[in-house]
Amino acid sequence: MKPKLTEEYVHVSSVDWQPFPEQFSEGGIRWKLLHVSPEVGAWTAIFDCPQGSSFARHIHVGPGEYLLTKGRMEVRGGDEGGGATAHALGYGYEACNARHDRTYFPEASEFYMTFLGPLQFIDEAETPLAVVGWEQAQALWDAQTKG
Amino acid sequence: MKPKLTEEYVHVSSVDWQPFPEQFSEGGIRWKLLHVSPEVGAWTAIFDCPQGSSFARHIHVGPGEYLLTKGRMEVRGGDEGGGATAHALGYGYEACNARHDRTYFPEASEFYMTFLGPLQFIDEAETPLAVVGWEQAQALWDAQTKG
Amino acid sequence: MKPKLTEEYVHVSSVDWQPFPEQFSEGGIRWKLLHVSPEVGAWTAIFDCPQGSSFARHIHVGPGEYLLTKGRMEVRGGDEGGGATAHALGYGYEACNARHDRTYFPEASEFYMTFLGPLQFIDEAETPLAVVGWEQAQALWDAQTKG
Amino acid sequence: MKPKLTEEYVHVSSVDWQPFPEQFSEGGIRWKLLHVSPEVGAWTAIFDCPQGSSFARHIHVGPGEYLLTKGRMEVRGGDEGGGATAHALGYGYEACNARHDRTYFPEASEFYMTFLGPLQFIDEAETPLAVVGWEQAQALWDAQTKG
Repeated sequence: MKPKLTEEYVHVSSVDWQPFPEQFSEGGIRWKLLHVSPEVGAWTAIFDCPQGSSFARHIHVGPGEYLLTKGRMEVRGGDEGGGATAHALGYGYEACNARHDRTYFPEASEFYMTFLGPLQFIDEAETPLAVVGWEQAQALWDAQTKG
Repeated sequence: MKPKLTEEYVHVSSVDWQPFPEQFSEGGIRWKLLHVSPEVGAWTAIFDCPQGSSFARHIHVGPGEYLLTKGRMEVRGGDEGGGATAHALGYGYEACNARHDRTYFPEASEFYMTFLGPLQFIDEAETPLAVVGWEQAQALWDAQTKG
Repeated sequence: MKPKLTEEYVHVSSVDWQPFPEQFSEGGIRWKLLHVSPEVGAWTAIFDCPQGSSFARHIHVGPGEYLLTKGRMEVRGGDEGGGATAHALGYGYEACNARHDRTYFPEASEFYMTFLGPLQFIDEAETPLAVVGWEQAQALWDAQTKG
Repeated sequence: MKPKLTEEYVHVSSVDWQPFPEQFSEGGIRWKLLHVSPEVGAWTAIFDCPQGSSFARHIHVGPGEYLLTKGRMEVRGGDEGGGATAHALGYGYEACNARHDRTYFPEASEFYMTFLGPLQFIDEAETPLAVVGWEQAQALWDAQTKG
């Protein structure tokens, strides 16, 4: 018989920030991995984004939802580029297969996000460069926080 | 051909709180519904919970994840009752089929939560009393915010 | 670190049929439980339905997909009642929150089905009578096949 | 208000087989696309696999479940290579992130499969070559079956 899963709790404020890889971001973004779900490949993290930082071009292979708890975030070009500019407290739903050419933070920001499936980092022609899903996120976090 | 879903954005701070039904809560809990996903029955909301408020006994029919952005929340009896006490900033994963006999807020609190599937409110013997899923949540929110 | 889940394999033909509870069906329906997914509450089964058998009134709390491998199945009243009549080989997608007042088999049939979330058996006024999800399905199957 | 999704029905036997791309398979595999779910990126298909045919190396980005209705399928090397050999009627659960270096059919076979998320076709070093998800599957099927 398979058991029920157990609940999890993380006191987020007590966890140290770790650098998010420069391969996937610019400007000093840091993160805390809060949860991974191996069965469906879901994962949850919170990100600290200094003024002027950004994430590299990526596709959301599954849907994602964010809560912007501080600052301002420009997704898909921001309001002026045909996308959206989120202001704290802001909620967003990014659909399955959404392409984000640049996610930019014009001021110091923080957001929490739940992901189903991986982020696929791509070049301009949409050629896959790297895949960051629950497994890669967990391995990175483990390497950053152990020993 | 089925289209991709579109992204959604809600400036949460600009939305008014609505009362969460007294059938399911005590002490003046208010909510804002942020998103529903009809395909898999997921929904997302934020809750404002005055000191001393609580949610009635329920089962999470699917998994849920919360971010406690303010205050303190006792789930499954809290730390002293064999459950967990969350302190802001706190993250929790509540597993599929978790039973919560009482979720209590010893101080004024606020939390954001993503749900897969409905909450089933139950009596002590686990007899179903009511089901609150994406469809019921959307209908309630629509009634509270239209006209 | 959480491990990847492992693959599973069942040679379906080598597993004995078990009676599906009369509380939820009429006419001698039998089943084999093939899989449960505790994380999201998904489960998979195959059903053997004699001519004239039927399932009791229920709601699909999440979406379900079936492959009718033999016979004929009338869902939501069948073609003549505004629903659909499936003929082997037939595929169907039943949406989240679909209500099935009676699923009837006018000839000996067999179908395979994947479920996300539970079936909620209801009375005519939609009052919940019983919930059959991955946990209840697994417990029943375990009781039927052990010792 | 978002509506419930609607049910779908396909009389599979009445749909013509289409060739599955040679970029991803060898030996004349054909397919019928039965369903796509844009919200979470799920899709469902049935495959006709001649004796000696095979699928190219891929990773299941999310979990998948199959029902082998005819023949024999060797996954992950088959029984002799540390994987599994399925015999009809056979059920299998392939876990999120499972890598299949070669899926081979030693006799004429047919299987039905539900996928969450895309297949990522890879080279031996696991470099992504192509992604086939609900969107690509739908576009291919549409091109093959429209006028």
